[in-house]
Amino acid sequence: MSSKETHIIFGLHSSLSAITNKNRSIKKIILTEEVLGKNKKIFESITNVEKKILNRKQIDSLTGVKIHQGIVVYADSLPVKAISDIRNEEDLVIILDSLNDPQNVGSIIRTAYAFGVKTIIYSKHNSFEITPFLIKSASGAFENVKLIEVTNLNKTIDFLKKNNFWIVGLDSKSEIEISSVPKDLKKAVVFGSENKGIKKLILDNCDFRVKVNIKKDKLIDSLNVSNAAAITLFEFRKK
Amino acid sequence: MSSKETHIIFGLHSSLSAITNKNRSIKKIILTEEVLGKNKKIFESITNVEKKILNRKQIDSLTGVKIHQGIVVYADSLPVKAISDIRNEEDLVIILDSLNDPQNVGSIIRTAYAFGVKTIIYSKHNSFEITPFLIKSASGAFENVKLIEVTNLNKTIDFLKKNNFWIVGLDSKSEIEISSVPKDLKKAVVFGSENKGIKKLILDNCDFRVKVNIKKDKLIDSLNVSNAAAITLFEFRKK
Repeated sequence: MSSKETHIIFGLHSSLSAITNKNRSIKKIILTEEVLGKNKKIFESITNVEKKILNRKQIDSLTGVKIHQGIVVYADSLPVKAISDIRNEEDLVIILDSLNDPQNVGSIIRTAYAFGVKTIIYSKHNSFEITPFLIKSASGAFENVKLIEVTNLNKTIDFLKKNNFWIVGLDSKSEIEISSVPKDLKKAVVFGSENKGIKKLILDNCDFRVKVNIKKDKLIDSLNVSNAAAITLFEFRKK
Repeated sequence: MSSKETHIIFGLHSSLSAITNKNRSIKKIILTEEVLGKNKKIFESITNVEKKILNRKQIDSLTGVKIHQGIVVYADSLPVKAISDIRNEEDLVIILDSLNDPQNVGSIIRTAYAFGVKTIIYSKHNSFEITPFLIKSASGAFENVKLIEVTNLNKTIDFLKKNNFWIVGLDSKSEIEISSVPKDLKKAVVFGSENKGIKKLILDNCDFRVKVNIKKDKLIDSLNVSNAAAITLFEFRKK
């Protein structure tokens, strides 16, 4: 992802978060009279940006979707972040190994932010694209979580280990429950794709391999990955 | 939902679950050679059902989507269930107040099943439709959770109270954490829509109003509803 790309953002939460994000360069805002009227102060504070009023149907045909909630924002993508941007005080980061579904990834970003996680690392290959749907699913949190794309997850894991992180892999085949990971460790938690799980080389590099304890049978052997992530973050943030 | 409607089901997990569900009357199966080859025993056991082999592109154009994973099943909808079908031994049921997003509802069904929840009650008005996307998101669990549609959630809550259920409403405005609800009670947990929360009349009828403890700020004030549900079920199932 180059820093010069333009993002299209829609959805009220996502758009307002982008507009009020000082790290975002906003190119253009298209919105309905209604959205403008309900958020006057915010839009009045945005000067030097083209604003265009359209009705919902016009925005429907412009975007090709109906879930825009009356606002579309054209913005430069956020500054690219690197592993070195992880701060010393961060004690819980997320690693996504080959996740694809934008709604799941968006939900994970939202939940991460809600549990005070500031960094999500993901593999460049076989991963999601940053789409308006992903940004909308993150419901505003996209602006304030560092999404870090890396080419080699195992190298990243080695770097994190050297920086005192313990690597926790979520693995539905494990017999150890998430609650058994000591609370006071700095953790990087790895989530794999629902079909394939975490890649073997990465799993072998984990300090802990744990699972959420569910009833498994021939119908279901794992949770939706965003649900598994939510449970894990909840458990790891518990005092 | 009448019991005579035909469901279209796609996705491998969902389809195989439907086909092997004795309560389902299967009308027709469309599948690729590849899916047939990998699941020969299952399909050989299905007699008296029309099976048609198509390639992926043909199934793409038939269904209008690409997420079918090489199989489409036409089946009668499942027998309609009522509140009286809740069994004595059930100690945790879910109530959905006006949820709409099929992927969220599908995820909740999947997670419910994984935590041994057998009943999900939902309001007839302002709720989701049962679509192939919802069934696919439930990843096979749709076949084995009782989805009960009711016209009046408050009447249903009164019925549950008379049957020794305590009503727990998830309410991000509450100051009480989910972990404070006593473990040994029979519980019906209510989840509201993300925009509006639980309707006031229903919230007033709850015995407990609790929240998942997250960092709230101007960006995020709640979790995605399927993530909130996952955390709640995990917490309530903990020993």
